[in-house]
Amino acid sequence: MMASAPPIAFAGSMIDRADHIRSAPDKLGELMNWRARLLLLDGLDPVIGDDGGLMWGTLADADPLAELVFLGLNPDGRGCFAAVAPALIGSTAPPNPRLWAAMAQLPPADLATYGGAKALVDWHARHRFCARCGHATVLAKGGWQRGCANEACKAEHFPRVDPVTIMTVECDGMLLLGRQPRFPARRYSALAGFVEPGESVEEAVAREIFEEAGVRVRDVRYVASQPWPFPSSLMIGCHGYADDPAIVIDKTELDDARWFTRAEVEYAMNDLKIGREDGAFLAPPPFAVAHHLLKWWIEQ
Amino acid sequence: MMASAPPIAFAGSMIDRADHIRSAPDKLGELMNWRARLLLLDGLDPVIGDDGGLMWGTLADADPLAELVFLGLNPDGRGCFAAVAPALIGSTAPPNPRLWAAMAQLPPADLATYGGAKALVDWHARHRFCARCGHATVLAKGGWQRGCANEACKAEHFPRVDPVTIMTVECDGMLLLGRQPRFPARRYSALAGFVEPGESVEEAVAREIFEEAGVRVRDVRYVASQPWPFPSSLMIGCHGYADDPAIVIDKTELDDARWFTRAEVEYAMNDLKIGREDGAFLAPPPFAVAHHLLKWWIEQ
Repeated sequence: MMASAPPIAFAGSMIDRADHIRSAPDKLGELMNWRARLLLLDGLDPVIGDDGGLMWGTLADADPLAELVFLGLNPDGRGCFAAVAPALIGSTAPPNPRLWAAMAQLPPADLATYGGAKALVDWHARHRFCARCGHATVLAKGGWQRGCANEACKAEHFPRVDPVTIMTVECDGMLLLGRQPRFPARRYSALAGFVEPGESVEEAVAREIFEEAGVRVRDVRYVASQPWPFPSSLMIGCHGYADDPAIVIDKTELDDARWFTRAEVEYAMNDLKIGREDGAFLAPPPFAVAHHLLKWWIEQ
Repeated sequence: MMASAPPIAFAGSMIDRADHIRSAPDKLGELMNWRARLLLLDGLDPVIGDDGGLMWGTLADADPLAELVFLGLNPDGRGCFAAVAPALIGSTAPPNPRLWAAMAQLPPADLATYGGAKALVDWHARHRFCARCGHATVLAKGGWQRGCANEACKAEHFPRVDPVTIMTVECDGMLLLGRQPRFPARRYSALAGFVEPGESVEEAVAREIFEEAGVRVRDVRYVASQPWPFPSSLMIGCHGYADDPAIVIDKTELDDARWFTRAEVEYAMNDLKIGREDGAFLAPPPFAVAHHLLKWWIEQ
């Protein structure tokens, strides 16, 4: 962990997950009282109060038909919940473009609580049926499981977390960054890709860098990780080295990829702070673990 | 990566995943010829040849009703496939106890190829229906995706990889290890648990150590990772430090947890090599990333 860096966005919630309560229906039931707090959501977006923090209501604010997921205990020992509202179920609504501005207002601990809740609620909304037999499933263990209601199947399903590698590569003191077609103008960032069954983190990094940029990487090391609730990734930030800087871009994945000097990376990171935006590229925002990778590299 | 250590088991396959072919039905079709190789499986277990390696057949050896997944290209450029046999679908057969002995025979690269194929085939066998709408799904992109066949839904589903943290903790030069009820006699290993939505690797490590052993951990660092195909985990091996050695064991998770001296850990690791087994505990086997964590700690 990087003591000198700004906090990793979406980490650092103050909610205690209180795993022992999830499997104890009596304890969970006791917590679902008038003191319990319900995270207010607008669809899947956070609702932000006048104090700039997340807004909470009581369980009475939930749709009577909603499923409730147990987020954990807040520092006062109150049960914290979120509702899987019927309107969310099966929804394929695109992300709200104002979401990023809303999230930027939240204190880091609230952003982390929101991110975890959003990933969990969204998983329930998109996982109503048993992948094994096709039967309907029901919420179990306070929302940390769904169980198939078919007595002949009874499969257990767990909220999904998808590991993603995201990595910077260094060659001759330069850093490899790329831009995806969906990026804002001038933005370059670390390359990234999902870890697949049957590969280590280090193998996934090497495969993605070669697939997307044609660069062979060695000596991969871990730098930092971040939960990323879009929809439910675990970003695993790494750094590696290349001996041959020749780039072959996979145009189905990237608009461009190129090597930037240390001075260009430093300038771009400073640009972000002062809003100047006249450097060689626009650096990834502080929200992103890629921002931390660039910061880590500059400080090496 | 640890150059001095034995290879991480289940990593290091020689199969090129050839991602670009998965999305090109014409190229995939061309590869499905008489030169293509089919990984032979006995249920989900490997079939081992006289040379001690994995046995391969041709596509003609697959059940005519099987789905075929594209593993990638072997070093000769041949397409390598595995079959999702009808008998596997929806199966809940327990793991074969002879599996570990069979896997121990395989060269490391073959073990990695088998592990990745096993995780992928098993995922297809257990994911026949759309979690969003309950409709049947069909194999897509050479087996790296399933698509909902319901025209009104068309959800895309991807093979699952579950990140798991596994960690050693150090306090006053001693190492915290625990034993699960299912372990063989005298075995102690690193504590472990799934990463949940909304937490970083470092947060998951701290939560699991506190939940299972009541120990507060700081300064968590990454050591090594491993694909673990039971059924499809990504083991993320870490090391952390504790200031207070007081242990409170969660008896629902662990039979025991205790601190071992460096000499006890060294003795136990040496025991494994020479088959002596008279130390303070039985160390985790070389297959397990926990073995690498203990080895890494001794070498510090």
